[in-house]
Amino acid sequence: MSNHAFEKFVDGQGLYDITAQVSSAVASSGVQDGLATVFIQHTSASLLIQENADPAVQADLQNWLSRLVLENDPLYTHTQEGPDDMPAHIKGALTAVQVAVPVMQGALALGVWQGVYLWEHRHSARTRSIIVNVMGD
Amino acid sequence: MSNHAFEKFVDGQGLYDITAQVSSAVASSGVQDGLATVFIQHTSASLLIQENADPAVQADLQNWLSRLVLENDPLYTHTQEGPDDMPAHIKGALTAVQVAVPVMQGALALGVWQGVYLWEHRHSARTRSIIVNVMGD
Amino acid sequence: MSNHAFEKFVDGQGLYDITAQVSSAVASSGVQDGLATVFIQHTSASLLIQENADPAVQADLQNWLSRLVLENDPLYTHTQEGPDDMPAHIKGALTAVQVAVPVMQGALALGVWQGVYLWEHRHSARTRSIIVNVMGD
Repeated sequence: MSNHAFEKFVDGQGLYDITAQVSSAVASSGVQDGLATVFIQHTSASLLIQENADPAVQADLQNWLSRLVLENDPLYTHTQEGPDDMPAHIKGALTAVQVAVPVMQGALALGVWQGVYLWEHRHSARTRSIIVNVMGD
Repeated sequence: MSNHAFEKFVDGQGLYDITAQVSSAVASSGVQDGLATVFIQHTSASLLIQENADPAVQADLQNWLSRLVLENDPLYTHTQEGPDDMPAHIKGALTAVQVAVPVMQGALALGVWQGVYLWEHRHSARTRSIIVNVMGD
Repeated sequence: MSNHAFEKFVDGQGLYDITAQVSSAVASSGVQDGLATVFIQHTSASLLIQENADPAVQADLQNWLSRLVLENDPLYTHTQEGPDDMPAHIKGALTAVQVAVPVMQGALALGVWQGVYLWEHRHSARTRSIIVNVMGD
């Protein structure tokens, strides 16, 4: 069992590949067969396992979600943290704060086309905190 | 390893903070480092980790989702359980039935602004059943 | 601790009940109290825990999501894999790649009305790979 925390610098909305950092936490845990759980300690960014091949998929995901969850929607009453904050919370609620991936033969048992991403929903640069829990034998 | 079940009374749509109940299950498990997994045994309510500071965030989340997933949508064929039932199932599908949080130093490793919520999607009062699984050392 | 992989044949969009396969993996693990985590190794299909009673719920879920996430949306730039591929990725991002269910008395601690489903988002027939991780005592 291990909990490994790391930070990821992000600079604006979009998907940031963290597969290498999660894989590294699994490797350093020494677990051969088990489960790796990735958790993000924020509510205006989220986690996503998605296609790692065509970058157009990531762009389309971002553009589709930003069209669904608009900035400056007159519905919002939480506006004091900027026009991108309430949409970021909604996007976070529609996606995942946590994803778990089985560990087999000492590695993440991801599908061929799967990568683990931090999905940043705010515009400005910042650092996001992530914890990787690894359990097993 | 422990599984701890508890019930939460809800009275209408909205977010209900269950952070204290989940934290209590972690404390009683005696686990210092590990993982706490929260599971809700329903399909018309869900779980959410979201901002615990400004109540306006929670109101906006509720209002935005209820505008996206309308009652009395002519698309619905499952209507016999009331106008709020099919929207509740869709809202449940778009959010989470389960969230897992690392446990560090005997406590939930939540971010500063994160709370654990039951998101109720039906109008009437009822009791919801939740299980907290805690694993680790 | 066990990781059990299985394949599910699907033939078009919709929900496919995999509760029996997941339960079987739990039974063969010998775990009496713990956690079962189901993971799908794809990004254009997902997992869902939803109502297992009225089939109309499943049809409405499918129709509602397909109306929200349209094919042939001019927003898409990832179009070379067919008109159903980018919508499938978006639907996958809005739902879950992984769900975890507590195990109690050797069985999945699902609610009375809950089933575990593979939600297929593509039109053509194919085989999907799923892994069930079971941990506990």
